[in-house]
Amino acid sequence: MKARELFRLATDVKLRDADAARQPLDKGNADKQDTKDAAQRLLERIAELQPMLHAQGKHKVLLVLQGMDTSGKDGAIRSLFGAINPVGLRAVSFKAPTEIEAGHDFLWRVHRQAPAKGEMVVFNRSHYEDVLITRVLGMVDAKECKRRYAHIRDFERMLAETGTTIIKVFLHISKDEQRARLQARLDDPAKQWKLDPADFEQRKKWTAFQRAYEDAMRATDADHAPWYVVPADSKPHRNLAIASLLLETLDSLKLAWPKPDPALLALKIK
Amino acid sequence: MKARELFRLATDVKLRDADAARQPLDKGNADKQDTKDAAQRLLERIAELQPMLHAQGKHKVLLVLQGMDTSGKDGAIRSLFGAINPVGLRAVSFKAPTEIEAGHDFLWRVHRQAPAKGEMVVFNRSHYEDVLITRVLGMVDAKECKRRYAHIRDFERMLAETGTTIIKVFLHISKDEQRARLQARLDDPAKQWKLDPADFEQRKKWTAFQRAYEDAMRATDADHAPWYVVPADSKPHRNLAIASLLLETLDSLKLAWPKPDPALLALKIK
Repeated sequence: MKARELFRLATDVKLRDADAARQPLDKGNADKQDTKDAAQRLLERIAELQPMLHAQGKHKVLLVLQGMDTSGKDGAIRSLFGAINPVGLRAVSFKAPTEIEAGHDFLWRVHRQAPAKGEMVVFNRSHYEDVLITRVLGMVDAKECKRRYAHIRDFERMLAETGTTIIKVFLHISKDEQRARLQARLDDPAKQWKLDPADFEQRKKWTAFQRAYEDAMRATDADHAPWYVVPADSKPHRNLAIASLLLETLDSLKLAWPKPDPALLALKIK
Repeated sequence: MKARELFRLATDVKLRDADAARQPLDKGNADKQDTKDAAQRLLERIAELQPMLHAQGKHKVLLVLQGMDTSGKDGAIRSLFGAINPVGLRAVSFKAPTEIEAGHDFLWRVHRQAPAKGEMVVFNRSHYEDVLITRVLGMVDAKECKRRYAHIRDFERMLAETGTTIIKVFLHISKDEQRARLQARLDDPAKQWKLDPADFEQRKKWTAFQRAYEDAMRATDADHAPWYVVPADSKPHRNLAIASLLLETLDSLKLAWPKPDPALLALKIK
């Protein structure tokens, strides 16, 4: 079964902590190293296809990564894209909006960073923050949030209709796993800098965030901009899942090297 | 009667050359100087309101100018905005897309230039070129053009719902007036540089352009993003009309200077 079917958002999605440890790609006998090896093989294939995507200059690929703090957005980008030629590849992190960004509509800064022809762009957080944290913290009310869902739907449909292949991934971790990861950061002098007191505040609203994610994903899931819920308590399985989704998507594009100029082929080098 | 009613696109709009000389704001006894004086008075009022718009930092104003070559887009911007404080004011000209721009969807470069809070932005040409010249020259087919109308509608509604007041003006000149203006450019060494052989090619497709404008305006007219058809054979009347539209729009925003900090008012300077 394809990863795109296994992880696709269910219409009646309910985010449960227990599901964060699911490993649907696992045949049941894989150890950690097996999973890493499997992901590695997919990554090598992706590394072959991406230069073709870029050379062809036809398709645009946008991978959106969302998830709670410590869900592994940075880690996934490092593991997945570290091995890919950075030409034609961009990773964009969206932080709290700057004053200039906040002066515009919430899609403004996102649209600027959208992939061009031949580009593969990965968003570490995205326009979805504007219907998640803003919603949970009460910065936007339900009515405004609904309006933003509609803006997102319109925007993503436009991107899709103008040649962008969109993959949206929610990295699903359990509250217990987050505790362990936050504790590990606290204990590791090399990771303490990653901690923000706000992370602990948001952890207190865990359930509200899960509900906000469910609502946002349900409201914006579409065949041309699908949401995938990837269990992320296990890092190797998380990477394997994302690599599978990405590779299946690239395969579906039927990429090919551009045809050389016929005049070039007729040329005889003397 | 308000200019916003006088010039608003009719649902059954039919662009006729004869209408390019209409002067509905004229009471019938104004000479050229009277019209210039009237526009000047409006501009002074706009020049007073615009710094308030900017200081308040709440509303965003977008004025889109479209029209055939020599219809006076540059001239209108020079006449209207030359006297306004450039802080918080931006004029953006959209030329043929660069390679980078063409790599993205057609709204990408436009969204980047959208006004921020407190800004007034005037577009000299716009995303409408992507359903006008592209349509007339056959670079996009009818189906793609319809899809772009939908993208434009979604985009403009999103801008409106996130605080942008949109005014779209079609500067309507007659084919005869264009001939006179092109001839004047040919004859004037200081204006020859403005000429592009493509202008003459497009003049040959005059009727197709008028039909494309009608279709595009009908498909994208909305109360939150209205189209105004401004007769533009007379430059003073054109300026008066645009100034009227802009001033009525600014008036409708109920602008006010920001309230000072109460602590500041309590302060006694010793």
